[in-house]
Amino acid sequence: MPVASLSDLLLLRIDRQLPLNRQIYHIIREAILSQMLPTGMQLPSTRDLARALAMSRNTVTYAYDQLLAEGYLETRTGAGTFITDTTPADIRLAAPPHPASHGRHADHTAQPRSALSARGIAITQQAGVSDRQLEAFMPGIPDVSRFPHKIWNRLQNKYWRRTHPELLTYGQGGGHLPLRAAIAEYLRSARSVNCQAEQVLITTGIHQSLDIIVKLLGENGDAAWVEDPCYWGTRSVLNSLDIKTLPIAVDAEGLPLEHALTPPRFICTTPSHQYPLGMVMSLSRRRLLLEYAAAHQSWIIEDDYDSEFRYGSAPLASLQGLDRHDRVLYMGTFSKTMFPGLRIGFLVVPEALAASFASGSAELYRGSQLFLQATLADFMGEGYFASHIRKMRLLYAERLQLLQAAIREFLPPQLEIMGGEAGLHLTLMLPPGCSDQAISNEARSAGIIARPLSRYYMHADSARQGLLLGYANTENEQIRPVFKRLAQIILRHLPPQND
Amino acid sequence: MPVASLSDLLLLRIDRQLPLNRQIYHIIREAILSQMLPTGMQLPSTRDLARALAMSRNTVTYAYDQLLAEGYLETRTGAGTFITDTTPADIRLAAPPHPASHGRHADHTAQPRSALSARGIAITQQAGVSDRQLEAFMPGIPDVSRFPHKIWNRLQNKYWRRTHPELLTYGQGGGHLPLRAAIAEYLRSARSVNCQAEQVLITTGIHQSLDIIVKLLGENGDAAWVEDPCYWGTRSVLNSLDIKTLPIAVDAEGLPLEHALTPPRFICTTPSHQYPLGMVMSLSRRRLLLEYAAAHQSWIIEDDYDSEFRYGSAPLASLQGLDRHDRVLYMGTFSKTMFPGLRIGFLVVPEALAASFASGSAELYRGSQLFLQATLADFMGEGYFASHIRKMRLLYAERLQLLQAAIREFLPPQLEIMGGEAGLHLTLMLPPGCSDQAISNEARSAGIIARPLSRYYMHADSARQGLLLGYANTENEQIRPVFKRLAQIILRHLPPQND
Repeated sequence: MPVASLSDLLLLRIDRQLPLNRQIYHIIREAILSQMLPTGMQLPSTRDLARALAMSRNTVTYAYDQLLAEGYLETRTGAGTFITDTTPADIRLAAPPHPASHGRHADHTAQPRSALSARGIAITQQAGVSDRQLEAFMPGIPDVSRFPHKIWNRLQNKYWRRTHPELLTYGQGGGHLPLRAAIAEYLRSARSVNCQAEQVLITTGIHQSLDIIVKLLGENGDAAWVEDPCYWGTRSVLNSLDIKTLPIAVDAEGLPLEHALTPPRFICTTPSHQYPLGMVMSLSRRRLLLEYAAAHQSWIIEDDYDSEFRYGSAPLASLQGLDRHDRVLYMGTFSKTMFPGLRIGFLVVPEALAASFASGSAELYRGSQLFLQATLADFMGEGYFASHIRKMRLLYAERLQLLQAAIREFLPPQLEIMGGEAGLHLTLMLPPGCSDQAISNEARSAGIIARPLSRYYMHADSARQGLLLGYANTENEQIRPVFKRLAQIILRHLPPQND
Repeated sequence: MPVASLSDLLLLRIDRQLPLNRQIYHIIREAILSQMLPTGMQLPSTRDLARALAMSRNTVTYAYDQLLAEGYLETRTGAGTFITDTTPADIRLAAPPHPASHGRHADHTAQPRSALSARGIAITQQAGVSDRQLEAFMPGIPDVSRFPHKIWNRLQNKYWRRTHPELLTYGQGGGHLPLRAAIAEYLRSARSVNCQAEQVLITTGIHQSLDIIVKLLGENGDAAWVEDPCYWGTRSVLNSLDIKTLPIAVDAEGLPLEHALTPPRFICTTPSHQYPLGMVMSLSRRRLLLEYAAAHQSWIIEDDYDSEFRYGSAPLASLQGLDRHDRVLYMGTFSKTMFPGLRIGFLVVPEALAASFASGSAELYRGSQLFLQATLADFMGEGYFASHIRKMRLLYAERLQLLQAAIREFLPPQLEIMGGEAGLHLTLMLPPGCSDQAISNEARSAGIIARPLSRYYMHADSARQGLLLGYANTENEQIRPVFKRLAQIILRHLPPQND
């Protein structure tokens, strides 16, 4: 090729403001791929091309070397540098399959594939996650602005001021042992969980805890009872793993068991604080559920996501602590007690499963972040965790009362409030004929989060209408005025009174 | 019940060194559950019991209140406090199923269930993850002791010194936008990846990237081509999601495609640096693979785990950058360039899939840790990332040379070294008849990691024997003496020379 035509092409496209060597590489590469520069063509020498471009020869050499290394160019001894023939020689083999195709996997291409799989469409179109997080009345979010960030910073500086290689590499299966020990101690005393440190597995939260339970204890096509309504994440994770979710409508005592059905492999429940309605599973139900699970070798997955915040009595004992047959997998999270972005949760498994879960977790997730886990262990060990929970419990109790008072002030008294004894949100029940989704949409436009209860049910026809109102993350002085605005929206949607 | 007998029981079991109220609660609870205290029995008044125990009445009241809240006790107006009947009334329904059982899910209990499912057994028994991380010659681990921890600490202090609630809550789908933008810019210039910030999804690493690809683009029962040998994590994650893995033996140009088979849904490949053997996929193979995938609507999953460390030429361009049909999902990680415990990786998806992947990721993982992501974005933006890579590349090149020299010094010259141009490890090939597993076991007892190549193959009979030797994480002065000890072990296992 004459020097002039390649240098013309380059001069036309080069931007002298940007680094030159990558540009020359890119322009020649694109010209080869588009066959503007044909296969087999000889390139000018680096010296000639550099002179024509008025550039340093090093710049051109860099581009040539990179193109040689990547196989676009080849050198022939004594002859020069040529464009390699890399046009796919076997491209005819890759022609689109026709009906008579007898490839080994022809069944996979029988019909054109959409971009997302059916499973992918289900996951993304039925997404329950909110795209807004810090507005008034968002449920499930603690007041992260009150997190003692200075204490945290001081504790984590300890691990960063000097080098700690052992905290920067991949983690041992199960997590940082001092954190597992701190969690075990906390769960034994605060939640009456029966466990040793080795049974505690550090995860990134409820979602990953559920994922590993299903992967290690479940088979494809297994089924799970889920409470109806329930947390959207439980459904999404189970569906993404092809576990069939069988909804069981909850009543005042939680998950009912009177129907004498053989339970499936998994039973997902929130016994201490039903999500999202807030009731507590009665003791007789708990004992029956444990007997059921033992008799049928089902696994009970206890999601204990926010029991630390109970405003009347002390937190209720866990279901796990009552279990005498090792059928309970107990999940918890620091998202509510610390802050959601920490992404640390834990899973307590029966002793016989502890080693398998630790190695399975390393294998599946390579979990680590020991530097964060070490800081959290210190935060717990030095008493900051317990004292932060105590402070937040008082604060949230105050906010709960403010919200309840606002509801009573601005709305008719017959609207029922559920779940006002514990947690970070309550549920305001709405009369039939009133669309919680419509109210939620209108509230959203006004900058207020009021998540519709009906979205938490598996079937629209059995869904009750209501609004989940988070009070934990809304400043005291905001609660009344913001709720007043929300109440005006709700009132417009209430059906006319009969009396 | 007479005060005496309950107080006797309590006095017998109480440890006066420990907090009393939880103890009283626990002892009464256990006595109820074990039926030592019978259902329906009346308890003494808190005043009488406190007097008998010589304790404050508040202590006893705490225990009673907790037992009332949890349903163990009930009060009858004017009569006192009684033990509730919570013995499972329907326990007969929960008897083990017999063959004629006609429960709705009776099929699930037809045979007794083992603790781990078959899938769980496969995941944990075939675990490829190492339980040791920081010993000499561990492959895949960078030198974490050289990580500029003080710079990192200074950058992260910025986010912790004052409160940043927006970084402590759940993340937006896809991750912290400034980090996604920094990664996009880096990938465009360093890896010739075609992408905008919105196409970059932050994950916890290769494992989670693979998990979301399969969940959103795959169906149950789909298949994937995997290179043979390949990274154990790829196989484990695919197997845990019930994706059938079809091994394709690699040759000198990487993944061969000459067999004219219709590819399955997924094609997993490490084109820039085959794992673990280290060859580079040739340009003609790359172009053919892209045509194949486009013609058959397969997804190419490009794992580009350590291409930053190439010692001869600049890093090679990615496969993704050659793709004109949006069939490539490009995965990378900060585990090698920063440190493994960071647990931040990234996935670049075609533009049309970006929004679905962002919402699917929030739905499935609730990913967050924005405080870490913000620090990493600053680390990249302020040039520390590029300069750390430059420094480490020089260091690792030195260590690679030291290891190659030691191999030549202590072992016969005919042993082939593969993958000595890039990455964090090389592979020392062993002659047939020599067991890499036996050498690895013996080395392990001597405190040296030498991972056996055969373990990375799917089928033992097609496996070549060799040792993966990581040099990045072994101090310069250690390499020769430690390898000398390893060479003595290897020499004992080599078959006798024929010449």
